This record gives sequence, C-alpha cells and structure tokens, in this order.
Amino acid sequence: MTPLRSYVSGRWHTPDDEGTPVHDAVTGEEVARLSTAGIDFAAALDHGRRVGGPALRELTFHQRAALLKALASYLREHRDELYRLSLRTGATLRDAGFDVDGGIGVLFSYSSKGRRELPNDTVLIDGAVEPLSKGGSFSGVHLCTPLHGVAVQINAFNFPVWGPLEKLAPAFLAGVPSLIKPASQTAYLTARLVELIIESGILPEGSLQFVCGGIGDLFDHLTEQDLVAFTGSAATAEKLRTHPVIARRSVRFNAEADSLNCSILGPDAAPGSAEFDLFLDQLVTEMTIKAGQKCTAIRRALVPAPLLDAVAQAAVDRLAKVRVGHPADPETTMGALAGLDQREEVRRAVRALLAVGKAVYGDADHVEVAGADPERGAFMSPVLIRVDDPDLPEPHEVEAFGPVSTLMPYDGVEDAVALAARGHGSLVGSVVTGDPAFARAITLGAAPWHGRLLVLDTEAAKESTGHGSPLPPLVHGGPGRAGGGEEMGGVRGVLHHMQRTAVQGSPAMLTAVTGRWTPGAPRAADGPHPFRKHLEELRPGDTVVAGPRRVTLEDIEHFAEFTGDTFYAHMDEEAARANPFFDGRVAHGYLVVSLAAGLFVDPAPGPVLANYGLENLRFLTPVYPGDELTVTLTAKHVDPRENAPYGEVRWDADVTKQDGSSVAKYDVLTLVAKKEPAEEGS
Amino acid sequence: MTPLRSYVSGRWHTPDDEGTPVHDAVTGEEVARLSTAGIDFAAALDHGRRVGGPALRELTFHQRAALLKALASYLREHRDELYRLSLRTGATLRDAGFDVDGGIGVLFSYSSKGRRELPNDTVLIDGAVEPLSKGGSFSGVHLCTPLHGVAVQINAFNFPVWGPLEKLAPAFLAGVPSLIKPASQTAYLTARLVELIIESGILPEGSLQFVCGGIGDLFDHLTEQDLVAFTGSAATAEKLRTHPVIARRSVRFNAEADSLNCSILGPDAAPGSAEFDLFLDQLVTEMTIKAGQKCTAIRRALVPAPLLDAVAQAAVDRLAKVRVGHPADPETTMGALAGLDQREEVRRAVRALLAVGKAVYGDADHVEVAGADPERGAFMSPVLIRVDDPDLPEPHEVEAFGPVSTLMPYDGVEDAVALAARGHGSLVGSVVTGDPAFARAITLGAAPWHGRLLVLDTEAAKESTGHGSPLPPLVHGGPGRAGGGEEMGGVRGVLHHMQRTAVQGSPAMLTAVTGRWTPGAPRAADGPHPFRKHLEELRPGDTVVAGPRRVTLEDIEHFAEFTGDTFYAHMDEEAARANPFFDGRVAHGYLVVSLAAGLFVDPAPGPVLANYGLENLRFLTPVYPGDELTVTLTAKHVDPRENAPYGEVRWDADVTKQDGSSVAKYDVLTLVAKKEPAEEGS
Repeated sequence: MTPLRSYVSGRWHTPDDEGTPVHDAVTGEEVARLSTAGIDFAAALDHGRRVGGPALRELTFHQRAALLKALASYLREHRDELYRLSLRTGATLRDAGFDVDGGIGVLFSYSSKGRRELPNDTVLIDGAVEPLSKGGSFSGVHLCTPLHGVAVQINAFNFPVWGPLEKLAPAFLAGVPSLIKPASQTAYLTARLVELIIESGILPEGSLQFVCGGIGDLFDHLTEQDLVAFTGSAATAEKLRTHPVIARRSVRFNAEADSLNCSILGPDAAPGSAEFDLFLDQLVTEMTIKAGQKCTAIRRALVPAPLLDAVAQAAVDRLAKVRVGHPADPETTMGALAGLDQREEVRRAVRALLAVGKAVYGDADHVEVAGADPERGAFMSPVLIRVDDPDLPEPHEVEAFGPVSTLMPYDGVEDAVALAARGHGSLVGSVVTGDPAFARAITLGAAPWHGRLLVLDTEAAKESTGHGSPLPPLVHGGPGRAGGGEEMGGVRGVLHHMQRTAVQGSPAMLTAVTGRWTPGAPRAADGPHPFRKHLEELRPGDTVVAGPRRVTLEDIEHFAEFTGDTFYAHMDEEAARANPFFDGRVAHGYLVVSLAAGLFVDPAPGPVLANYGLENLRFLTPVYPGDELTVTLTAKHVDPRENAPYGEVRWDADVTKQDGSSVAKYDVLTLVAKKEPAEEGS
Repeated sequence: MTPLRSYVSGRWHTPDDEGTPVHDAVTGEEVARLSTAGIDFAAALDHGRRVGGPALRELTFHQRAALLKALASYLREHRDELYRLSLRTGATLRDAGFDVDGGIGVLFSYSSKGRRELPNDTVLIDGAVEPLSKGGSFSGVHLCTPLHGVAVQINAFNFPVWGPLEKLAPAFLAGVPSLIKPASQTAYLTARLVELIIESGILPEGSLQFVCGGIGDLFDHLTEQDLVAFTGSAATAEKLRTHPVIARRSVRFNAEADSLNCSILGPDAAPGSAEFDLFLDQLVTEMTIKAGQKCTAIRRALVPAPLLDAVAQAAVDRLAKVRVGHPADPETTMGALAGLDQREEVRRAVRALLAVGKAVYGDADHVEVAGADPERGAFMSPVLIRVDDPDLPEPHEVEAFGPVSTLMPYDGVEDAVALAARGHGSLVGSVVTGDPAFARAITLGAAPWHGRLLVLDTEAAKESTGHGSPLPPLVHGGPGRAGGGEEMGGVRGVLHHMQRTAVQGSPAMLTAVTGRWTPGAPRAADGPHPFRKHLEELRPGDTVVAGPRRVTLEDIEHFAEFTGDTFYAHMDEEAARANPFFDGRVAHGYLVVSLAAGLFVDPAPGPVLANYGLENLRFLTPVYPGDELTVTLTAKHVDPRENAPYGEVRWDADVTKQDGSSVAKYDVLTLVAKKEPAEEGS
C-alpha cells in the first residue's frame, strides 16, 4: 500500500518510503499508510507565505466569506463519501454527522459571520477611536491586519473532518493560509476531505496545505508571523509549547486539550423530575457518542449526595440499553474506539479509577459486540464508575478517553463549585437544574475554570445542542488542563489570526490609513450634497452642513401632542426645573433627531435608498425653546456589498446649537446605490 | 545596610541575610541591598488567592475604579519623594516625569475607563447574545469573570514606577490581586512606591504584595488561575515562558521585551521641511530620554537613501547639543545609565554594530560629564551609527539598550516595509511624513510586525506624546522579538485578567445568570408601569406593552412637513415604488421611534429622569400607511452609579406591526432615580 499523499508547495506529494500503517478501527485491517518522507517543510511554509498569504490578503472579508460558503456547499454535496469512510474510524452514522455536518456547519457559520459582522474590506478596526489629546490633533485607533505567516493546524484523531474545518474557517476568513496536519489514526478521512477541497478548486492556491504524517523539522522554520493551533493531549501540548523556536520567536500557540469536564445535577432535580431525566440522558449520550472519545465529554458526574443511589440506578438502566456493534448497523448506538492502542490506554485509565471506586456499570475488558469481532475491532463497553469520596485526587486527574465517566456526590453548592474546579481547567461544564439561583451560583462560581458552561433546563432542552458540542459563535477552549487556548467564538477566532496594532496620528492621517473618517479630520462640505453621490463617488469626509432651525415651544408642544410623548420634562415647566438635568422644559430627543434629518436629507430620488438604522446616539446637552439647531453629516465609512447594486454608508451626525455645543451625536446607517451599469462607461 | 523589605502575606518581611548590594547609578555608592531570604512564596500566593482575590471580587468595577483614583491622587501628593529617589537611578527630572507621572496617569486612566466603559457590577458581558436555535429557547452569551489567582508582575529596571503601576491598574480593575517583583537595579524606588501604597491604606489587604529580590521557587507554585506579566529582555522571557509549571498548567504568560523599533522618514520630508525636523527631534529625544533605556526607543532610523547624508549631518548637529551630566542639574539633558553593568553591555553591543557601520556621532567609551564622575557613574555618550548596507543582519538584531541608534537608507516604500519587518516584531514604529499615501502604505504594510505605529505629521506633532510613550488606552506589546504580548489597551488589559466563558441556556436562565434580560426570556408586563419604579425596584424583564397606534398617510405627510424631512420615499408614491426596498410610500424611521416613545412613555414626574441615548437601532420592516404599531419596552440592565442618586437603565424596545413582525428594534438608555433616602426605611 502506497502511503497517502500530502499537498504541499502547490502539488500532491507521494512519499518515497513505505510509511507507517493505520488500521481500520472495526476490522483491524490496514486502511492506509502515512509518511511525510521527502517533504521540504521549510519550502511548504514559504509557499504558504509567498503564494497563499498574498492571494488571501487580496480578497476582502466578504469575498473570503463567499468562498467559505461555496466550499461548504461543495462539501455538503460530497458528504456521503465522508460518511462512508467515517465507518472505518469506528464512528456510527450519528457520530459521523457530528463530525462531517458539524464541520460543514462551521464553514457556513463563519461565512455568515464574515458577511454580517466584518466589513467588505481587507482591514478591520477594533474598538472605538481613542482621542489622545485635548486639542483633538492626536488620536489613536486599533487596526487588525492578517499575520503574514502560516497557521499550522495540528488536529486530534477524534474529529477528522470537524477539527480541520473549525481551524481552517477562522484562519481563512482572517486572510491567513493553513497547513493542516491530521492525527495518524484517522488521517485517511482528513486526506479525503482535503482531496475534495483541492479538487473543488474553490480556495486560492497556497491557502491550504496538508501534511499527512509526521511534521519533521517544521517547527524549526516557524517565525513570529506563523501560528500553531494544536488539539490533542495535554502532554503533547506541553511538549510543543516549549519548543525552542516557539519560545524564542513568541510564535502564537493555541492549545485545546481534553479535560476532565463535569456535569452537575441540581438539588431540585429529584427522581421523576424532568431535569433528572435530562441529566441522565445527557450523561449516557456523552459517554457513547464517538464512544466517549470527545475532549468535551462528561468525565465527572456530580450529583447531590442524597441522589447518588438513584442516579446510579437510573444510569445503569439506561446504559443497559446501549448496543455496541458494527458502526454501519443502524441498530448500533455505540461504535468502536479509534484503535486498539486507544482501547488499551482507556483500559489502563479505568484500572486507575477502579482503584478508588467501583464500576456500577460495564467492564472495560469485556463487551458483547453485534456484527463485529470484539477483539480485532477496538470495541469496549461503556463503564460508569462510582467514587463515594470526591476528595480523592484520581477522579479529577485520571482521564479515560473513551466511554467512561465517574459518578460522585457533592454536598451543597460551594462544594459542587470546588469539585468542578478540581479539574484545574475544563473545556466545558454543565449544570442541569430548574432552579435559576442554583444555576447562577454554579455558573458564576465555576466560570473561571471553564471555557464553556451549559445550563440545561426543560426550556433549553427543546433545542439544546448539548454538553459536548462546541458551536462556532461561542468560544471553544478552556484554561489550565484544557490547554489555556481559545478557538472560534465568531469574530474572536478571526482576530486570533491577526495582529492588533495601535495606530496613532492626526485625525486626517488616521482617516487616510484606515479609510474611515475619523473625528477631527477635515470635512469636504463644498461639493454637491453627498446624498447625490453614488457609492463609488462617496469619500470618507464628504459632508453636508444644514440649518439652523429654531426650536420653539410650539414645536415641542406640537410634537408632544402629535406623538403622544407628553413626558413632563417637555410639558411642565416647574416639574422640568425640578429634574436634576434640566433648567426648564426641553425638546424631545426624538424631536431633535427628527429635525436634524429634516435638515440634512436631500429629498429627491437619488443614490441614497434607505436609512436602515442608527447607532451610538447620545443626547449631550438639553435643547430649550429658542435654541437653534445645525447638523453636520459626514460620510464616515463606505462599505460596498458584494453582488448587490448597493452598499452601506455610515455617517457621522453632529447636531449643535447656537453656542456650538453638541446636543446629539450619532451614526446614521444608510444603503446607497452603486452607479447603474449603464452609467459606468460615462 | 539591611536589605529592603518585602510585603507579603499581610506584613512587612525583613530578610534574614545580608542581601545583594545595588548601587547609585551616578555615584556608584551602595543605595540598597536586596534579598527575599525567608519568604514563603507558596504562602504569599495563597494569601493573594485567599485574602486579596475575595476582597477584590466583592467590589464592583466602579468601586475598584474609585480606589484606583484615590490611589492616583495619593501618589500625586507624594510624587516629589519619588522624583528625588529617581535621581539615584540616573534619571533626570524629565525622565522621572515619564516614569512617575506616567505611572500615576495610568491609574487615572484606568479609573476613568472603569467608570465609563464597565458596568457597576462584578460580572462583565463580552459581546452580543448569540441566538443558538430557531425556536429561541437556546442562546449563548460570553461572560468574563476574574481569575481566582494572583497576577505575578515581573518588572524591568527602566521604569520602576510606571512599570508596576501599568501592570497593577488593569489587574486591580479586573479583580485580580498583584504580586510585584521589581528589577534589582532600581528596586529601591519601587520599594518606596509600594511603601507609599501600603501606607495609604487605600487598597484592600492582599490585593498588592511585593517581593524585593529573587523570586525563589515562586513559579513552582503557580496554578492555572495565576498569570505572569513579564517585562524585560527577550532571553529572560524565553526562559520563564518555558518553565515547566507555566507549560504544564497553561499559566497565562504575557511578555513585553525590548525590540529593535524603527522610525521611517518619508521621501517627502526633504531638509528644510517641518517633517525633516520632526524626525530628527524625535530621534534625538528617543536616544536621550532615560539615556535611551526604553524598550520603545528608536534603534533603527530608516531614511530615503538620497537623504541619508543630510539626516546624518542634522543628527550630529543636534546630538552635539546633548549635555550629559548629573541628573539633578537642570542643565543636564541626559543622565546616567542604570548601572555600570548596563553600560558594559551597551558598549559590547556598540562594538558589534561598529563592525558593520561607522559612528557618525559619539564614542561609547568616552564622554564628558558635567557635575559627576564619568567612571564611577554609568555615564555614556549618545552614539549614532551609520550602516550603509541595510541588508546586513546586525542592525536588525543587535540591540544596544542605551543612547544608541543606527541610521540606514531605504529604497522605496516596499523596501522600507521589508526593513521594518527585519526587526522580527517590534513594540512600536513610527513614520514621519506629510504624505497620507506613504503613511497608509507603511502603516498597513508594517502593521503585522508592530504593536503600535505612530504617524507623525505637523498636525499630530502639536500634541503627539511621541514614538516612545505607551498610552493606557492603546495596546502596548508587540509580536515576535517584542515578546508577543499585549498590555493595557483600555478594557482589553482588564480582560487579560479574566476568564471568558461561553454560557449557554434558555433565555430565562441566561437572564438569571447574567442579571441582564436576554431576548426570549419571560417579561413581567402585569405590574405597574416600569417608569413608576425606582432603580432598586426595577427588575430585568419589567415590561410595558403599549399601542396599537395606526399610522396614517396624513401622519406621514404631517411629520414630513413639520420636520422638513420630505425624502421621496415618504412623499412620492411612484418614486417610492421604484425604490428596491419599498412597495410604496413609507413612514419615516424617526416617526416610528417617535410614535413608539409616545406609546411607552409614562408622562408624570417619577423616577425616570431622562433618555440619554439610543443604541443598535435597526429598521427591519417598512411601515406603510394604515399599519398599526405596538411597542414592547423591557428593562434589560439596571446599573446603579456609585455616589449618585440615580443609575442607568437600558431598555429593550421592540416595535411591531399588526402582523407581529418587528419594524424596529433598539436599546433605549435612561437615567432612573434611586429611592429618596427618606423612603428607604419604608
């Protein structure tokens, strides 16, 4: 058998040695061979930096988002093939769904986030403009730019499709090329995924490379512009993190390691309650999906001491219904572990746990298997261990990375929080309760030790994605034992691949650098009304100044009567004076912004199509009868949409009164048409 | 001489050995002795965790901010003492200003950021609520909670006051206790600072500890809840970062190392131009402030090749006016290095640079010193080295941490960016130009290698704080060689000390956990109108539903005429139909929100004092003549102010029409009175 190919430096590479065999988790047959012999890792990194990076950085966030969506659709069309191959990893069809559909879902999610939450631009502004001086000639802003290196992504064996895709999506959206390294046991599935991606031709060359085997001297060639995202064991994370090049060049290193996650049953959830059942269903689900080989699985089930017996009995009843078997058999509810080595490791961990507890269900060494050979395939029974003394160290430290969980009692909410923290940092925890006070106490207490916490009640259960599922809009990763990293979390995951740079300068220079008009920068108010300009013609700084309009007491009374807003501060001189903020009757804030629009709007049909919103409105000074309002409206940011005849324009609105003081400041959000295609030649 | 005391575990600790001497930078006399003999580091960490952490976590962000302000004021009253002691470190009065006033400024800045940008609460929400399901029963939100450990802060010798304070302020505001370790050379100044702080009695016990000497086995006792913030050399950063406990427990490690920062002169800045002078003034300033011992100093001055001679000559002219002397002498413009060892290190680096260039000014081994002994004090001449071949490695790698800079030519903007990147990661860079296009090209090109970039033109120069000054609202730290860390940056620096946890659950549970009403959670609409409730009585979820109100064509026309907003989409049926978003004439968005206020406002005087703003307004569906509007206003977040008779209440406003669809959603921001003191007993 020829080893699987890698995809590096723009071509498929076939290793020039025999490689190392990988075996089918179900039959023990050889499935594939792995080797990276002959790969020039320095050249591969260089290819990513020279070819992939520049190609990605030429695209805007929206263009990259569109490619992610196209890729997601393409993979969805080819997922059956990935499902079939998943069987050989020991995964049932349901397991494969989590892996394959979950991975495709991350691509869709990042595509959507990119279009909705990022500009159609190559540059991202983080946070607000910071005025740095009293006179307004010196300000600062934070600019995020893609790193000019390669995102080296080292994946775990348990999610051969989801793992690479959840790392690829934010890197790609950020504009950083990826180099994917799969774990050996299931590398053939990732290899097929990568083949599909390369065959699709959707991603720019150099934006994805793939090394199917050992990483050789790859780390020796990393620079400060590269980054490493690792998922796997805590021990390997520790080793890689301290690699001399990582340390010397401050290479960004993100680790996500499996942890001893807990699930806590609330004291309100007595047997017979809906929450009691939810807790047990979730526990058994987490023990059996992917045969418990999930870094987010429940390793520690914490229940109120008085409920321990009842929970143990109910768990045994449920576990007895688990059917271990050939993953292709639709009757099977739990497939095989990823390989015989894994099973041996899990058995060792179970023995360590049994030294301090007793198995209430299952035997790690014996299992009945439907439709497959229990010895040649890496099958194992689910094992639930009961430990009556939760202060012992083992249940909080020994991780059996398989269908194994430990059941322990706790005594009160503080004890539950303390036990949760004994994991020394977890990816996820859950609390199953109908009691909001208990949920709050556990969540706030345990949060510093967790990257994610699920509060499960009957309401959430209707649509909950469960304890074990990381979701792209939420961060994935946890402190301490869980690796101390953070992935996904929507745009946060994109920012991990970018350098945040504080840029200081005059407002005019910041406008030039960022392409966003910055307060204090010159305004161009001498041209045509900016509402008469098409999107392509509008420049940051294009301004209309309009007014003044005098606000009379009659205006205020009329507006109050018309809208029904007869709040006393507008209507009752004496009561208004008694208000700590007003010296007498004031105009409605809504009246001020309505009059301002009346001043700045250019009424005739033109490129401005609609006002779709307002942001950051602050009323700064009260407007009294007799005050005269002027509004200055300045184009702040012009953001064309891909594949639409219009784009978004954000305007800075500043309403001032006769003494020059600002009475209201806000951003007006509009849709503005691009030039008609017919006009483009003119 | 008895060694300086440390402050650990709630008391002053006097070492039980003789300690190591530290010498006056100017006279060479012994100033102090350092030792941490006898300190139980494990106990100190435990004290921070058990006493300091809980005391801080009981306070809200606003309460912590108030303490920072009180501390800043206290230190400002005592700064003369710190100024005087600074002289012994070799610092002039101007140097001491940067250190002492700069440090106090960070405290004021964080106090202000805390009050303005954080809630008066112990819990921080990061980002938006993420809906996770179609039916709305399952959502997520990111919660930030303070780590339960200690922030171990290892400072550099060059800023003995600013350094500890810029690390303390964000940690304190986050609710995490600090353990400060100063660098040996200037530890006596930090020791006096800490004495002042402890004497003030302003900070809660345990929130600040101080170890004046070696850190012994401190690192062996760190856990996943602690963090380390290091400022110093790249070599020490590398060593500490790979400490086994840091790696094994994923202890957060932030490094800020000195780097080979560059300053780039624009091709437009010919001799005689204002920018030419700005560049040279800045270069000489950065070489001489703190005798060039700043991690942000300009080590590489990059100028257009045709201007190299002119820049060299102008620099020599300016450097000739630098007066090296006793730091107490007001005529002195440059004081001493921190010690003789430092000077020896700088001389070694200068020799390495001179191997590839020539000194256009200064001699590292000889200097005339006014009012002090040039051999017993660590005095040195400023040295400007010219390297004509900028492709040589030395100028980009060898750092002389003193009054030393290298002048090099570049050839075009791409070359300038490539040379800037040769520093392999810098804290800061600057570009001095009047040309916005050049500024943009350099900034966007060099950003991935920089934590901060200053664009200096004549406008910014009026108030610029300069190339070398990190500012609390902006991030400080850079990639690669600069350590890969990030400090300050306003609230970003606070978040570095907190765990971000994704919390998932039903909207009702998320409301209970966060104290913020979450969309989809139950609303309480059956009580009194929420505008009749005082701040203490309002609960997230308190709701008023009001309407319907029918919007007529007459309303639209009347509003248009009254406000002057006669935009065609409101006035012209045919033109409105031609608009891609409308089926005919539509109501003004401003009319919709005005009518909504008319519906939800309760007019009589009461606890609601004012509407101070609006956020996140989106118009979602057009309103046509005949549509009937209903508004649902729900209290979302109640945020009491410290020391004020009112607080801020954020309301969720949802305006719907007869078919139930939302036409506008936004947040209404109000000020609501607390109960009168007289009423409190009732």
